[in-house]
Amino acid sequence: MARIDQRAFDQLRPMEIIPNINKFAEGSCLIRCGNTHVLCCASVEEKTPPHVPEGEGWVTAEYSMLPRANRERSRRDISKLKLSPRSAEIQRLVGRALRAAVDHKKLGERTITIDCDVLQGDGGTRTASVTGGYVALALACKKLMAQGLLTEDPLLGSVAAVSAGIVDDQLLLDLCYEEDSAAQVDLNCVMTDRGQLVEIQGTGEGRSFTIEEQRGLVDLCAKGIRDIMAIQQAAIRQGGER
Amino acid sequence: MARIDQRAFDQLRPMEIIPNINKFAEGSCLIRCGNTHVLCCASVEEKTPPHVPEGEGWVTAEYSMLPRANRERSRRDISKLKLSPRSAEIQRLVGRALRAAVDHKKLGERTITIDCDVLQGDGGTRTASVTGGYVALALACKKLMAQGLLTEDPLLGSVAAVSAGIVDDQLLLDLCYEEDSAAQVDLNCVMTDRGQLVEIQGTGEGRSFTIEEQRGLVDLCAKGIRDIMAIQQAAIRQGGER
Amino acid sequence: MARIDQRAFDQLRPMEIIPNINKFAEGSCLIRCGNTHVLCCASVEEKTPPHVPEGEGWVTAEYSMLPRANRERSRRDISKLKLSPRSAEIQRLVGRALRAAVDHKKLGERTITIDCDVLQGDGGTRTASVTGGYVALALACKKLMAQGLLTEDPLLGSVAAVSAGIVDDQLLLDLCYEEDSAAQVDLNCVMTDRGQLVEIQGTGEGRSFTIEEQRGLVDLCAKGIRDIMAIQQAAIRQGGER
Amino acid sequence: MARIDQRAFDQLRPMEIIPNINKFAEGSCLIRCGNTHVLCCASVEEKTPPHVPEGEGWVTAEYSMLPRANRERSRRDISKLKLSPRSAEIQRLVGRALRAAVDHKKLGERTITIDCDVLQGDGGTRTASVTGGYVALALACKKLMAQGLLTEDPLLGSVAAVSAGIVDDQLLLDLCYEEDSAAQVDLNCVMTDRGQLVEIQGTGEGRSFTIEEQRGLVDLCAKGIRDIMAIQQAAIRQGGER
Amino acid sequence: MARIDQRAFDQLRPMEIIPNINKFAEGSCLIRCGNTHVLCCASVEEKTPPHVPEGEGWVTAEYSMLPRANRERSRRDISKLKLSPRSAEIQRLVGRALRAAVDHKKLGERTITIDCDVLQGDGGTRTASVTGGYVALALACKKLMAQGLLTEDPLLGSVAAVSAGIVDDQLLLDLCYEEDSAAQVDLNCVMTDRGQLVEIQGTGEGRSFTIEEQRGLVDLCAKGIRDIMAIQQAAIRQGGER
Amino acid sequence: MARIDQRAFDQLRPMEIIPNINKFAEGSCLIRCGNTHVLCCASVEEKTPPHVPEGEGWVTAEYSMLPRANRERSRRDISKLKLSPRSAEIQRLVGRALRAAVDHKKLGERTITIDCDVLQGDGGTRTASVTGGYVALALACKKLMAQGLLTEDPLLGSVAAVSAGIVDDQLLLDLCYEEDSAAQVDLNCVMTDRGQLVEIQGTGEGRSFTIEEQRGLVDLCAKGIRDIMAIQQAAIRQGGER
Repeated sequence: MARIDQRAFDQLRPMEIIPNINKFAEGSCLIRCGNTHVLCCASVEEKTPPHVPEGEGWVTAEYSMLPRANRERSRRDISKLKLSPRSAEIQRLVGRALRAAVDHKKLGERTITIDCDVLQGDGGTRTASVTGGYVALALACKKLMAQGLLTEDPLLGSVAAVSAGIVDDQLLLDLCYEEDSAAQVDLNCVMTDRGQLVEIQGTGEGRSFTIEEQRGLVDLCAKGIRDIMAIQQAAIRQGGER
Repeated sequence: MARIDQRAFDQLRPMEIIPNINKFAEGSCLIRCGNTHVLCCASVEEKTPPHVPEGEGWVTAEYSMLPRANRERSRRDISKLKLSPRSAEIQRLVGRALRAAVDHKKLGERTITIDCDVLQGDGGTRTASVTGGYVALALACKKLMAQGLLTEDPLLGSVAAVSAGIVDDQLLLDLCYEEDSAAQVDLNCVMTDRGQLVEIQGTGEGRSFTIEEQRGLVDLCAKGIRDIMAIQQAAIRQGGER
Repeated sequence: MARIDQRAFDQLRPMEIIPNINKFAEGSCLIRCGNTHVLCCASVEEKTPPHVPEGEGWVTAEYSMLPRANRERSRRDISKLKLSPRSAEIQRLVGRALRAAVDHKKLGERTITIDCDVLQGDGGTRTASVTGGYVALALACKKLMAQGLLTEDPLLGSVAAVSAGIVDDQLLLDLCYEEDSAAQVDLNCVMTDRGQLVEIQGTGEGRSFTIEEQRGLVDLCAKGIRDIMAIQQAAIRQGGER
Repeated sequence: MARIDQRAFDQLRPMEIIPNINKFAEGSCLIRCGNTHVLCCASVEEKTPPHVPEGEGWVTAEYSMLPRANRERSRRDISKLKLSPRSAEIQRLVGRALRAAVDHKKLGERTITIDCDVLQGDGGTRTASVTGGYVALALACKKLMAQGLLTEDPLLGSVAAVSAGIVDDQLLLDLCYEEDSAAQVDLNCVMTDRGQLVEIQGTGEGRSFTIEEQRGLVDLCAKGIRDIMAIQQAAIRQGGER
Repeated sequence: MARIDQRAFDQLRPMEIIPNINKFAEGSCLIRCGNTHVLCCASVEEKTPPHVPEGEGWVTAEYSMLPRANRERSRRDISKLKLSPRSAEIQRLVGRALRAAVDHKKLGERTITIDCDVLQGDGGTRTASVTGGYVALALACKKLMAQGLLTEDPLLGSVAAVSAGIVDDQLLLDLCYEEDSAAQVDLNCVMTDRGQLVEIQGTGEGRSFTIEEQRGLVDLCAKGIRDIMAIQQAAIRQGGER
Repeated sequence: MARIDQRAFDQLRPMEIIPNINKFAEGSCLIRCGNTHVLCCASVEEKTPPHVPEGEGWVTAEYSMLPRANRERSRRDISKLKLSPRSAEIQRLVGRALRAAVDHKKLGERTITIDCDVLQGDGGTRTASVTGGYVALALACKKLMAQGLLTEDPLLGSVAAVSAGIVDDQLLLDLCYEEDSAAQVDLNCVMTDRGQLVEIQGTGEGRSFTIEEQRGLVDLCAKGIRDIMAIQQAAIRQGGER
């Protein structure tokens, strides 16, 4: 059965990462995965929240969708006086994923906040936020190194993320919105450049799934993440040359 | 290496489910997993939220910790005017898990809300909420059947949940608080009585983990959930006899 | 005219106080007055709010009902972003009542917060919160003494509370929910072990009441509080032996 | 012992009620009790909240202090995003008191909201709000009668309120701010023109009080309320002539 | 075409400013412009917000309407949990206008907050707030001088404000509510006693307006403000004699 | 004296408007005025708010800055639970300006919401929002016409906006951030394609300004708006061809 956009079952959507998109942020990029567009900005602050041990740094993330990122306009969080629970969940995931990429001691007593704002959403915004967020983070670390504020690279390696799902009982990589809406199962992985897992989240929305299916989805994600990491590294190289 | 409470690596904490603990709720139980105590109440309302198709029902969950459920007292959500993001994430998980157990058409145009209030927390409160929440849900369905409000059982089968983790590079089932605090990796599964997955969430908090380790953790969870389901069924039988 | 549960006009509902119900709180109990069940936990914090004079301590209370404590499920405060005005009023009453039992100078620069969470409500939750809250407070003070953090007992004496009301022009002690719903007048007293008043609140909901009726209601409360104090003291003795 | 302003122990502060102070409200007055000034406005709306039985009306109250009503400026509720718990408690009291003065069936399906805004506070703002709120309510009812919207007077009789307290072990009527700050016991009564109680609220802030003292305080309030009702009636007569 | 209240096109409504209306505020007045009544209170606090340079002072304003200030009752901000956007806009304007009248260095490290509470609104509440707010501010400065807390007058000169508008293509000064509701264009000016502008805000609500019309409106405002400043100065003189 | 970026005193920053930047919005553009970048999206909804007369439509705007739009990261509104007062003020201005461009009767019973989200801010974000917002609005109207939902063009003409200011006593058009920070006076105009004013807002931040200076600033704005309207029209033509 053909995919809606003719991709192979294990093929990513066209992905593009434009580094240094924001003039003020210490690191930034615009990541486009098909029609999903996320602006990722890293901001450095020379202090840490109370729960962080002395001498260590902190990495955190915030995630939000612009009101017209979707097919229907949605109300802003502030007009409902509530952070969208979906956004709350996603920004916790992005923060955990990016913290796994950093040696908090080498970062020193500073906080890097990664803002992921979805300008347009067409499926896979949380994984695009992790992938683009890592680029913004890496560029901010490069800048801190270039400024002499850091003498040692705090990055432990790279992280990236992708989703896979089951649609009509077929395992597919990197679901777009139409596929996602029809998916029976949806599973995201965050992985390191050594091929290890940092996060896995899978949900049977239409039906439950076997342990074998779960394994197949992880394998698909692992394949996709290898492809993504090449694009990520190119963007970091390009962005670091400014 | 021995566990803090001398359990085998694949052994659950002592678990007890007391059905019908609340006089007013259509279904309820108190679930105790070691020192984790969660009060689960199912409330039936004869209407559904706007996004639910006509003729169908809805199941949703709310999760909260009492201020002194933990070693340190925490402030109430209302005094911060924010739903705890952790609670937001957990109640979304519990809701998805329980919806997987129900045929929404057979439920009819009604909403069942499962309130999971943690009286005392010692690790594993989200999985206890799924497991206890299912008991409250099943008892509410039984009551609706007994009252003649439902003629056909809307339950598709049972769901339960448990966590497993990696502590000191060892895979362990059902982490208590001390183990959880020291865990390198933490993974939760929600599974059906047919041994299939409904949800999987795994996080490398201290380190990343291999695909093989991930598989081992799922296998441990599958074993634990089989044990839990026996206790669940006994509680539902006992509670249904009122 | 017989009462709904066959009690004499001046008879309390069956009351039970289970001390040390929470593993973490410095003092705690579960109080059951008929079908009203309140979990009371005392938490000690080694600092005081800004308005408290240097060298003195502070006692405060929070009160909340679980969503399904009642016949109908009610929405959580956080989903309305407002502390229930009724809860605000009750927790101010409980705090005032318990502060009357404590010598703030002897308590030292620490705050004891009494959380009263109603697991099931069947009338009289505010008075049960005062009565159970005092037990939690007393057990916390005992613990501070046992730990050597306090050398002198800060308790000035005990306090307890009960309600009385006028139903069908009859004066009745300790109204249950059905009686409360039909009451013309409802009056609560908080009293000390020396038989003195700390708080009195009376409301004519269906009709106004004479000064003589008001006096009669206070006398009924005084009688009930004497009975309650015996149960309170037994619970404190039992709880203090841990 | 002489009072701070030379009053007798059972003497009210100078009281003035200026009716029709607001051009738009259906009924209004400015009440001055010594240096306590409260603006009371009654607004009529031709609908009722959901909990009110069909065919009946509703009376409710809101209470607030302007930021500089007191010796120290206080922040506005909106800047804290919380209704002051003290205001919440007071407006519930005022609402209950005024509802006791009205036959809800005769009022018809409309709501009268009494806004009590304290322009300057010097003790006794809650009782001034009840007393002035009744005047605003009565004038609004007169207007509804004059407009032919009501054919029968919905007022059952008048209500008014005052406080009494124990200062230096002396029973005093109508405490001003300095007396209130030093009071050992503070007690408020709302009473009808037939001398019956609608509300009683007493608190031992510095010490507990005997049942005899409580009775003495009620007797003082009863005396004061008789004096207040003459001023109230004069204001309603004067205001109704517009 | 005659105006609704027979005024000439360039004539103000009757204006009255009663100084020292509040017993506690460092400076205060009640300003009445026709049926618009605003209570203005200046409160001095011996600290400044973080953004203010060391050694300097700050002046800020808050604006609010009482619920029944208008023809229809409006809900309080706190019951909507949102500061009215209109109030937010107005209080920013009032704050900017009054800061223009003060030498922040001479004020010293203190904040003066001007609370403008509209008791009754009939058009022109924002300009009345500026005009009355300046009186409260000037009286507070006088008091600080009299107390010796300030040795040099921090006031740079006076400010006042008025509106003008286009109704039926006629330029009119100081619109009342009925005129304002029918206005095609509404324009406010804040000016100094030297006849210079501090703020100008003009809006074409019913139609756009030519540059010539805009100039004509400013000229009308300038005329009105000269008249207002005489009343302002008299009130400050009178109020400063206490 | 030369400007920071060598522009003439009456020269705009380079301006670019990219139409149809968002795949889902009925009309959209990205407007760049120098380093100020605003994403403007028009969303059509087939209903109107309660205050809109039957048979008429409504145009409204929302404005927000992304956290890292500025030199320093700012917290999101939702984390402070308050709409920024500055944003509240700006979105009211943008809404009023755009409503002036539309015949509400011809629009029919629908609402067009213009979301203006500042991706990068370097001065002049409110005027860029008006100018870009009009393009989004016009493209949405074109789409409604093309779809046959509208048979008559509801646009009355175009509106655009720009600022001018006084820096070092010189009148300058279209201030960038550095100029704006140093400006003594800042004035914005919204004008129609017939050269008439819709809005004027001017503030003396460092000093007051004469009526002649005010006139000079309006003349500068009028010149700038003529230049802007050519770019606006080109973008609408280009965008309408999709």
